[in-house]
This record gives sequence, C-alpha cells and structure tokens, in this order.
Amino acid sequence: MIERLKEDLIKLGRFGRENSMKRVECYADLDPEKGISRPFGSEANRKARDYVVKEMRDAEMDVKIDRIGNIFGTKKGNDPDRDSILICSHIDSVVNGGMFDGALGVICGIEVIRELNEERFEHERDIEVGVFTGEEGSSFDFGLLGSSVVSGRISYDEALEIENQDGKKVREVLEEIGYFGNFEKNIGEWGYSLEMHVEQGPILEEKNVPIGIVEDITGIETMIVTIEGEADHAGTTPMDMRKDALVSASGVIGALDKKAKEMDLSGEGSASGTVGRLNVKPNETNVIPSKVKMGIDIRANEEHKMERLVREVKKELKNLEETHGVKTEAKIVSKEFPMELSEEFIEEIENSAKELDIKYKKMASRAGHDSQNIAEKIKSGMVFVPSVAGISHSPMEWTEWEDIKNGAKVMLKTVKNLC
Amino acid sequence: MIERLKEDLIKLGRFGRENSMKRVECYADLDPEKGISRPFGSEANRKARDYVVKEMRDAEMDVKIDRIGNIFGTKKGNDPDRDSILICSHIDSVVNGGMFDGALGVICGIEVIRELNEERFEHERDIEVGVFTGEEGSSFDFGLLGSSVVSGRISYDEALEIENQDGKKVREVLEEIGYFGNFEKNIGEWGYSLEMHVEQGPILEEKNVPIGIVEDITGIETMIVTIEGEADHAGTTPMDMRKDALVSASGVIGALDKKAKEMDLSGEGSASGTVGRLNVKPNETNVIPSKVKMGIDIRANEEHKMERLVREVKKELKNLEETHGVKTEAKIVSKEFPMELSEEFIEEIENSAKELDIKYKKMASRAGHDSQNIAEKIKSGMVFVPSVAGISHSPMEWTEWEDIKNGAKVMLKTVKNLC
Repeated sequence: MIERLKEDLIKLGRFGRENSMKRVECYADLDPEKGISRPFGSEANRKARDYVVKEMRDAEMDVKIDRIGNIFGTKKGNDPDRDSILICSHIDSVVNGGMFDGALGVICGIEVIRELNEERFEHERDIEVGVFTGEEGSSFDFGLLGSSVVSGRISYDEALEIENQDGKKVREVLEEIGYFGNFEKNIGEWGYSLEMHVEQGPILEEKNVPIGIVEDITGIETMIVTIEGEADHAGTTPMDMRKDALVSASGVIGALDKKAKEMDLSGEGSASGTVGRLNVKPNETNVIPSKVKMGIDIRANEEHKMERLVREVKKELKNLEETHGVKTEAKIVSKEFPMELSEEFIEEIENSAKELDIKYKKMASRAGHDSQNIAEKIKSGMVFVPSVAGISHSPMEWTEWEDIKNGAKVMLKTVKNLC
Repeated sequence: MIERLKEDLIKLGRFGRENSMKRVECYADLDPEKGISRPFGSEANRKARDYVVKEMRDAEMDVKIDRIGNIFGTKKGNDPDRDSILICSHIDSVVNGGMFDGALGVICGIEVIRELNEERFEHERDIEVGVFTGEEGSSFDFGLLGSSVVSGRISYDEALEIENQDGKKVREVLEEIGYFGNFEKNIGEWGYSLEMHVEQGPILEEKNVPIGIVEDITGIETMIVTIEGEADHAGTTPMDMRKDALVSASGVIGALDKKAKEMDLSGEGSASGTVGRLNVKPNETNVIPSKVKMGIDIRANEEHKMERLVREVKKELKNLEETHGVKTEAKIVSKEFPMELSEEFIEEIENSAKELDIKYKKMASRAGHDSQNIAEKIKSGMVFVPSVAGISHSPMEWTEWEDIKNGAKVMLKTVKNLC
C-alpha cells in the first residue's frame, strides 16, 4: 500500500516541478527555492489530471468529467439504488507549493480502490474518487471552485464565466487543458464524503499523534482596510500635529493580534487574525506616511467569533479616527462560513482508528477545504495527517511516509465500514 | 523679480508632475493625489537639471558639474583672488512632494544673479549658484549627498559607490542622467554660503512673520531596521506559535512614536521619530509576514536626545527578540549632527531685513539642509519663508508669492552687502 502511494505521489510531484525529482525523497534534501507550481489551468495541472485519470482507469474505475472540470472515477457497487461514497480532494497547487497538499487525498482515494480490488471486496454502494477543480483559487481569486459548483453555492454557468487575472475565463481554461466535460453532477447521489489531507499546521506533530479527525472547518473572512492620514515632513511636523497613517495602522495590527491571541488561547476553538499584506504611501523614510492599505485574514471555527474579530478591527479604526484624525475604510472582500462536520461521521472515523489501534485526536481545521462545501449538503468527514513543522504552501511542505500509511489505513477501514 | 521667480518655479514644477500644470496656481486647487516626484536620478530630475543649467547659461553664468553631479553656475567678480559667495539649495524632491522645497533656493539664486546683471552691479567676489545632488536621500537612504561630499564628510569615490534600493550605484545613476562631471570641488573657494528655503513647519505662519533667520539646524539620524520572523499559513498557525514580523514591527512603531511625542512635548527643544518606510515580505493576505524592513527618521536639536530615541528603538527590538522569537537588525545609515549657524552671518541677514523693513524671527530648523554640511567649514546662513499650514513633502506644500518676494529681496540685499 505505502509503496504504491509513495510512487504515485512522487510521480504526480513531477508535474509542476519537472527538474527536481531527485530532491523529493526526503525533507532535508528539498530545495527550498523550488516548489510545485500546478495552479488550475496550467500545463502542469493538465499533465497531473491526465496522470490521475490514467491511474483511475488502471484501477478499473469509470471516469467522467463534469462541466467545471471535476474528475469523478467510480467503482461500481452491487446496489445501484443506494447512495454512494465520495473520496475527494484536489490536485491543483499554489505557486511554489508542496507535493502533498490536495494530491495526497486524491492518490489515497485511488489506493483505497486498488486495495478493495485486490481484496475482491464486495460492496453495495458505489465508491467514487473525486478531484475538485481549482481548490487553491490562485489567479482566479476564487477558491474551492469545483466544490462550490457541485454543492450549489454558485451555478455551473456562473462559475464558467469567472475570470483570472489575465481576463481569461474558467470555460476557456477548461477547453485549453481539455477538461471541459459535458454533465452536471447531482450532489444527492452521494451519501457520504471523505477527504484525507495534510494538517498544514503544527498540532499533530507537536502532540505526537498520527491522525487528526476534523470536527469543524474554519470560516475565513478577508478584509481590506485603508487608513488615510496626511503626508508631511518627518522633521518639521511636531509630534502632536501629525496624522501618521502607519502609526495608526500599527494600532490596528496590535489590537487584532492581541484579541485573536486571547480568543485562540481561550481553549474554546480556533481564532486567528493576520495582517499579511501592508502597503505604505509614499513610503519614504523622511515623509510621514499618508496612506496605509492592509489585507487582513480573519478565521474562526464559529461565525460569531469571526465577527468579534471584525468588530475589533472596526472599533480600533473608529478610535483612530477620533484620536488621530485619520480617515479609515474597511471592506469585506470575501467570506467563507465555518462548517461543522457530521458527528456520526466523526464517530465512524474514531471507530476505524480504534480498530486499527492508531492514536488520534479530534481537532479543528484552520485551513479551508472542499469538504466545507460538500458538508453543507451531505455527511462529510476529514482525516488529517501530520505536517512536518506545520509547514505547507511551501516547497518545505513534508509528511512522513509512515504517517501517510496510517492515514490511508484509516481511510480504507472507514470506507469499508461505511459500505 | 517676482514674475520671473513665479514663472521659473511653475516651469520647474512641471518636471515630476507633467499632468497637473493647471493646478499649481493656488493652494486650494492643488490635487492632493498628485505631487512632484523628482527623486535624484529620475527622468524628471534630469529634465529639471537641464532646465536649471539652461537658465544659468541664459543668465550668463559659467556652468560646471562636479564628480557627484553637483551643478555650479558662476558669475565672475572683478577679483579672482577673493573667496566667493555660494547661494545654494537642491532640485531633487521626495515622491509626491511639493514645488518649493529646494527648488525655491536654486531659482532664487539664479534670480539674484539676473537682478545683479540688470543693475550691472559691480562686485569683487565671484558669486556662485550651487545645486546639490540628492538632498532628499530617497531610495539611496543617504540625504544631503552632494554637500556631504563637498564638505568632506565622505569622499567622492565613497559616495559614488553608494547603492539605492535596486542595487544601483550613484555613479551609474549619474551616468544615466548625464550628470557625472569631471572635477572635484574645493570648499575653500567659498567664503560664505547662503540658502533660502521654505520653513516646512508652521511657526512663521502662526506668528505671522515673513522671514525666518535660522540659528541652528536639527540633527538627523537614519536607521534601517530589519525584523525577520517566519512565513507561515495565516490560518493553520496558532496565534501563540507565530513569528510575525509585522506584529513585531508594529511594536517598534508604537514605542518610537510614544517616546518621541513625550520628548517633543517636554518643552526642551525639538525631537521626532518617524517610521516613513516599511516593506513587508511576502506581503500576501493569507501568509504570516516573514520579514519587515523599516526606514526610520530620528531628529533632535541635541545629539544626546537623538541617541535616546535610537536607544528606544534598540530596546524595543531586544524586547521583541526575547518575547516574539524574531531576529532583528538595526543599522545607522546616516547621521547628521545638529549644527549652529554663524552668528556673524545671522547678523548680516538681520541687517538686510531691517534695511528692507521686513519683519523677521530667529528660529531653529527642524529639517535638515545642505547648509548644515557647508556650515561645518565656512560661514553659512539660511533664510526661511513661511509654509502654508506648515506642510511640506506633500502635494499640499505651498508658500505665498508675496512671501517669496520678501525672501528674495532679503537674499539679494544680503549678497550685495557681502560683496
């Protein structure tokens, strides 16, 4: 099992990192300057899709592509009337990302089917492996694309019109890579959905637990905050006569960090607030900053907590308007709601881990996943495996093969139990 | 006199603000979104230099460029053995700056020569108009460049090797704009130096006095502070496991602002601390900032006060290393000491103002000027004219034409008296 998983992941890892095959064997040898760049619609993305389709067919699966380019490979069960089981993830990557994020869940799904084939396992339900289009967003600024369509958040036709930064539409990109299919998926066909993914955080490694069972997936809100003060000479403007946009911004950064820390460490679920992007104008050492624009990422496992952090930012901005005389603006540019996963499903995965005698930990996902769309409509579960040093979206992303093996075993057991 | 000054200043103001000519006539109409951007080495800077050289030649001056790109236009006197009089300032600007800072002193110098020409004024000493290279520092992080070389603070050869943020050397920039001259200026040729400048602060306007006579010039220290944390996923990294370089930077910004405010408002002379430049890496909304680089401007009328502010920054950095686990570096990239101007010269200017019956006020300069370098070696004086609302380094910078006329009259009278 693990040898085939390893081979597949390494082979898949070629696409988007053609020149660094020899470096994937071990974490320490990875070239941190390089990574896997396989954004949706790239040539590397096409090659990776072709590879996955071939592997599905080799595993005797029936492969279909829907109108948003999602790939579904089906292993038929004995009872066509029962709803089916989906094992899903994605194979697109961020630019300079790693070889496990997404790919692991897809390859693991195919491996589960191979194992069932070898065992000649009899099952009633169909088992489907799904590859969702455009999970990372990349230049489309719209993440979780394929699962948003299937779960009905947006229609196929709307989604096909979304443009990337070059003004190219999803439809055109799908035609270019040859993955513009001709049917629309009905989410009601599935009874269960299961996704394995790398944690992308440090918790499992730190606690030395090989399996994470996801209880809920974070909500994500993106804010753009603008603070306008007044450009002035850094020497001749007395300290009490300034409208320094950067001094004001530092107040927002500090307040958000403090509040998010307090909430995150309270023991009542996750919360985070990050000012990841900040641009200063005019950005000259001897000029008082007149304008600061910040991109803020706010996450929490419950919506009211996300709103508390948004309110904290707005409160600080109002305070700055009054005390510093600056003008401020706060815009919410995207919002994904937090999602609790099915308790029944969590128990199923727990039982699998117990039967296999593998330690596990129930936890929150602090990254977004296709499963949070699917979970809106059908019972969904997620299995996490540890990320070395908690790193992902980076060439340094790594997961130990032993952990991947444990994850795949839990996935296989859970699928069997569900059948 | 004032008509020619006005025409010159408006024409010079085109360079770096080509599209907003119609807006320069009056303060209220200025487009606060636009300004004059004429940093040393820019195409606009080259055009402005060409303009000034042409005006000097039209005023029958002999023009020479030295090895650091300083422009010197000379009107010969009758006695080549006597030391000469320098009238100086600069024509580079900050990004989005105003049309008077620097330019006024240069144009006024040329106008003084024109007036003397028209009067066929006989004089013994040479009178020279000097345009110093790179007064503002801009992307070179080294202000008062041309005067630092002439006064011997650094050598021509050292100065030519200084690099800007793109890694381009002063030498290359001078070659690109065609102002890499072939001689080295000997400061001993000058007996006196005189500079007119906008106050860049609110005091003259507030006291309703048209002329400021500068007694001392602030010291300025420029620091580059780098904070290195760790890039990580903005969602999956718990708040207590981050090394967020921007959160750390916000601590420095807040601490410096607080300390400088306290010192500046103490009533014991001026002090200021400004983080004018800040760049974040990788600067993506959903990635924790791994690196922040800040350009910090520190000023005070006494050196020990400057040092107190530098210590405040370093103390905060040390604190952040211990509490936030970031690595920090603080480099002093330039230091100009506070400078007292010649008492004899202050009296000369006072006498000129009295003869012309124009009110004046002796005062400190909170901005740095080329004159503080020159004053180290030869007798120097500075004349200030009011800045509307004290604003400079901004598109809103303005000085009333009436005030410019008064300033030019005091300059002309002082030069004549010195001859």
